[in-house]
Amino acid sequence: MISKSDIKYIQSLSHKKFRDEAGLFIVEGVKMTHELLLENKQLVKKLFAVEEWIKTNKSLVGKSIEIVQVEDFELQKISTQKNPQQVIALVSMPEFSIKTYNPDGVTVVLDRLQDPGNLGTIIRTCDWFGVKTIICSTDAVDAFNPKVVQSAMGSILRVNIIYSDIVEFLASHPEVPKYAAVLNGKSIHQIDFKKPCIIIIGNESLGISDQILGKEVTKISIPKYGSAESLNAAIATSIILSNCVR
Amino acid sequence: MISKSDIKYIQSLSHKKFRDEAGLFIVEGVKMTHELLLENKQLVKKLFAVEEWIKTNKSLVGKSIEIVQVEDFELQKISTQKNPQQVIALVSMPEFSIKTYNPDGVTVVLDRLQDPGNLGTIIRTCDWFGVKTIICSTDAVDAFNPKVVQSAMGSILRVNIIYSDIVEFLASHPEVPKYAAVLNGKSIHQIDFKKPCIIIIGNESLGISDQILGKEVTKISIPKYGSAESLNAAIATSIILSNCVR
Repeated sequence: MISKSDIKYIQSLSHKKFRDEAGLFIVEGVKMTHELLLENKQLVKKLFAVEEWIKTNKSLVGKSIEIVQVEDFELQKISTQKNPQQVIALVSMPEFSIKTYNPDGVTVVLDRLQDPGNLGTIIRTCDWFGVKTIICSTDAVDAFNPKVVQSAMGSILRVNIIYSDIVEFLASHPEVPKYAAVLNGKSIHQIDFKKPCIIIIGNESLGISDQILGKEVTKISIPKYGSAESLNAAIATSIILSNCVR
Repeated sequence: MISKSDIKYIQSLSHKKFRDEAGLFIVEGVKMTHELLLENKQLVKKLFAVEEWIKTNKSLVGKSIEIVQVEDFELQKISTQKNPQQVIALVSMPEFSIKTYNPDGVTVVLDRLQDPGNLGTIIRTCDWFGVKTIICSTDAVDAFNPKVVQSAMGSILRVNIIYSDIVEFLASHPEVPKYAAVLNGKSIHQIDFKKPCIIIIGNESLGISDQILGKEVTKISIPKYGSAESLNAAIATSIILSNCVR
């Protein structure tokens, strides 16, 4: 049985303001919670789960984490998903700081990215390609938004996501080559990507701000063979990473 | 002023059954409608738009297409989006047939793809890379689902999307090389893609069915450098196409 105040509290965590205040975000579903308990158990603060899940996972959870048993209709109330799956976890937000950032391999910089699905997919793709750090402009969508978490899957806790003034960030690393994804740049197939390097991806409809494009960056593009006006931001990021990382 | 029966009719078109019966689907928003009127005017059957849009676009629409002027609250009722944008078009579904299919360049085959956002993004990416035909298994998500249309953008009418028995389809083209995206295949960087060819992408969680993998296909993979368990299906498709098309 879940209390009314718990319901209200969990629902509040779908808003950035309350997530930041609490230092907590929501992870949903059997698969992600399982991965979380295996890899980052110390971050799990509380679990809300149906009886069936608790029976199966009791030993994995151990005694240090509080579990609240809920009915299906209660899970529906606290879930952000249409079809909630057995369990919801309250998880501490990892704290990554720009101060400890070190250029290493490939860093992805996101300028005003707005779509939660895009950010989640970019996080998952970065994790696939071994990209350890994503720097988001402070006005980009929040990484702990439930939709971002859902599409990032387990990668949300494996990639360092830092919100910062990206103009300042780029200026503070003059020695690192910077590649900016635009529609009229040099073909990615003609670029010999240096490492460490920084890949810059822009907003879904506005692209990269002039303030950044005016600085020392190499403009790069994915060659087009057909008619679409542009590529989705997560798709562009993934194709560039696939070329840059190999 | 929009009639009650129009509202009901348009709302019904968010279901595949009614779309198929009517042979119509919905296109929303200023940008897509503009593209549609420029490139495929003959497919537009009726427009529902606010006064402002009608004033600006009257000459583009011409006299052959019926326009119903609606208020913002009416647009809200017939839209599938949270923030509808000025105009909704009823559009004839193009009819593509497997009978007229000709292997040409790269063909993408989707086995049981379920997520509308993924299909939409794959359509847009195919259009970027000049892929003319997508063959979907009959149990894949419907291409004229409003969410697919929204993420495919103008590409929805530039790529031929055919629903068919894909096992039969693959068997009927024994001469065309087939590349199947799996997690343990040969690196895409070591493949010398022949053309014409067929790229096969599987369901988001189940991958490609054994029935297809048991046939003559080359299993291919995107090399992994990090920790994510898998890549999103649209991301995988785009990275493979980027390597295959160039």
